[in-house]
Amino acid sequence: MPKSKYPKSDWIRPLVRDLHPYTPGEQPKVKGLVKLNTNENPYPPSPKVLKSVRDAVDGRFRLYPNPTAQQLRDKLADLHGVDRDRVIVGNGSDELLALATRAFVEPASKRKDASGRSVVQYWVPSYSLYPVLSDIHGAIRNEVPLKPDFGMPSVAKLKSEGKWHFKAALTYVTTPNAPTGRGYSNKELRALCRAQDGIVILDEAYVDFAEENAMSLAAEFPNVLISRTFSKAYSLCFQRMGYFVGHPHLIRALDSIRDSYNVNGIGQVAALETLKHRSYYRANFKKIIRLRTEVGSELEQLGFDVLPSQTNFLFVKPPGAEAAKWYEGLRKKKILVRWFSSSAFKDRLRITIGSAEEMDQCMDAIRSLAKKLSDW
Amino acid sequence: MPKSKYPKSDWIRPLVRDLHPYTPGEQPKVKGLVKLNTNENPYPPSPKVLKSVRDAVDGRFRLYPNPTAQQLRDKLADLHGVDRDRVIVGNGSDELLALATRAFVEPASKRKDASGRSVVQYWVPSYSLYPVLSDIHGAIRNEVPLKPDFGMPSVAKLKSEGKWHFKAALTYVTTPNAPTGRGYSNKELRALCRAQDGIVILDEAYVDFAEENAMSLAAEFPNVLISRTFSKAYSLCFQRMGYFVGHPHLIRALDSIRDSYNVNGIGQVAALETLKHRSYYRANFKKIIRLRTEVGSELEQLGFDVLPSQTNFLFVKPPGAEAAKWYEGLRKKKILVRWFSSSAFKDRLRITIGSAEEMDQCMDAIRSLAKKLSDW
Repeated sequence: MPKSKYPKSDWIRPLVRDLHPYTPGEQPKVKGLVKLNTNENPYPPSPKVLKSVRDAVDGRFRLYPNPTAQQLRDKLADLHGVDRDRVIVGNGSDELLALATRAFVEPASKRKDASGRSVVQYWVPSYSLYPVLSDIHGAIRNEVPLKPDFGMPSVAKLKSEGKWHFKAALTYVTTPNAPTGRGYSNKELRALCRAQDGIVILDEAYVDFAEENAMSLAAEFPNVLISRTFSKAYSLCFQRMGYFVGHPHLIRALDSIRDSYNVNGIGQVAALETLKHRSYYRANFKKIIRLRTEVGSELEQLGFDVLPSQTNFLFVKPPGAEAAKWYEGLRKKKILVRWFSSSAFKDRLRITIGSAEEMDQCMDAIRSLAKKLSDW
Repeated sequence: MPKSKYPKSDWIRPLVRDLHPYTPGEQPKVKGLVKLNTNENPYPPSPKVLKSVRDAVDGRFRLYPNPTAQQLRDKLADLHGVDRDRVIVGNGSDELLALATRAFVEPASKRKDASGRSVVQYWVPSYSLYPVLSDIHGAIRNEVPLKPDFGMPSVAKLKSEGKWHFKAALTYVTTPNAPTGRGYSNKELRALCRAQDGIVILDEAYVDFAEENAMSLAAEFPNVLISRTFSKAYSLCFQRMGYFVGHPHLIRALDSIRDSYNVNGIGQVAALETLKHRSYYRANFKKIIRLRTEVGSELEQLGFDVLPSQTNFLFVKPPGAEAAKWYEGLRKKKILVRWFSSSAFKDRLRITIGSAEEMDQCMDAIRSLAKKLSDW
């Protein structure tokens, strides 16, 4: 009986009381900042997509959207040459990544789990959402470090070291990786998927900026799900559109636990139209990739350590001063990049590749800071 | 190691393998059907809302939406006269109802739970999503029947009967109720909330069509959350906008487990603009309520048993033939209503109050079927 003004602590699950929420990249309120911190695409959606969306803003808003986003699933199935029961659409791929923990991972009753049924596994560093999803679900995290160059250890090496769990219920692999930007070859991904007795999600949020994609592994292996998103490459962050491709049994499991109307109507309209104008987006990918190469060389000339990137961002170690100092210095010059303050790679910055103008401003700021350092 | 073409069954949680998904009301593909089956509002959003949304369809689509829907939270807090930390916005209220199971209910390890920590409790009949959410989470369902007239038993009666769990971790109350349309008084809701040692969600999806609302109980009791939605009353089903109001501790718990960008951008724009034009919507509520009364009387004259309704639908027992027959007969005449085929109240139909024209068509069809019955 609620006699107190405060909720009793046992009304909230112990698991939930202690959670550390995911910290999204800052969406700054200050005007005029060059925003290179959350890997958004500098280009707007195709004008044809925007027009279709505008045309859809009418009385249909009063009606529920298609509960399974069926038309979009069908078109995505066509695009990837798979059966329609191999596709599920989510409220951003984040929703699907979260659903996967709930469909495939048993919450842990103890701290250790030899069977692997409660284990969520991923590389460090990779997408910082995975530990959050694991904790929310009460799973056991198995965080395995990448090699010093952020490459993936071989299966043989993983077996000999004994830290990797080959029976983990769920393994997330960001590929190409964030925040490092490194790509993994299909050969090494295939070896990992084959060695794994449990679900593997290949999270290809940045794959449109890469040389290779791993979609074929979803057809090859019954334990592999490919995660894709319209956010970054297709400039639809605003409407939260992501999808998985994989074996129908896995798709059905995810379907049976999602919210019944999980995908908003305008997002469905926008994504469907996007698929009709892929050449517009491909031209943008090319521009971003070209700029990535140029900016990377310039940064190297200035003494930055620049990791090779298969994404729309660069992960760099700045010279002469701490990354924190560079982050602050750039911010004062209205350039916002991402610095992971409490991580093992806090000596690095992640810089999204924006438009040519934005990268000019960014490089001007960097050169001016570099000059101050050399004058110092 | 995936040697088979099929996923191993133990890659999917036993809980998930056996789920029965929620069945949304049919979204018919046949054109020209009068759609009175999912309680959608017959009126479109205010033209000013549609204009604001169209104006927002631009380059911002490439950016992430506000991750906490903060501006909307603030405006909703103002609207209800509460602090801003008492509001959370969801991808439809369905998302928040699901989050509540994960924040407040411990998955069950046994079939029985005297402590109540694993118990999800609700009236039968009420919103058919609750058992689905409970099963997805692995909770124990406590389904307690309403009185034969679909009224709520008193607390004294519940105590004497011993079926109600006063320590249930989570109790859902649809108020006014669906599919019955019955309202509960604040007096009886207050008595229930006070007697309950656990979270109570008063799910007010239809409250704009009712005489009373229970928002004040969220301020009065630290265990009460009020659930509201923009779907039905505010014609925004398409964009999935719902919210909860309640104690900051409970809101924080829900916040810590939601997806970080759970609310799409256009939905936020639409809901914010909706709050500026409440008189447009209030005029629509009045029209719907007036029509509900008229249609109810006409149906009674034709021999239907019509429950008093505080919602935008009527729950009726048709005369002379089974409800299934009426459902089929109406469908042949292009009128789609909702019939819960496998429920304890399969002798009833739920008819959404549409526009005046739609209700004319519906009543014409009903009169013609009634005439055939009396000729028979």
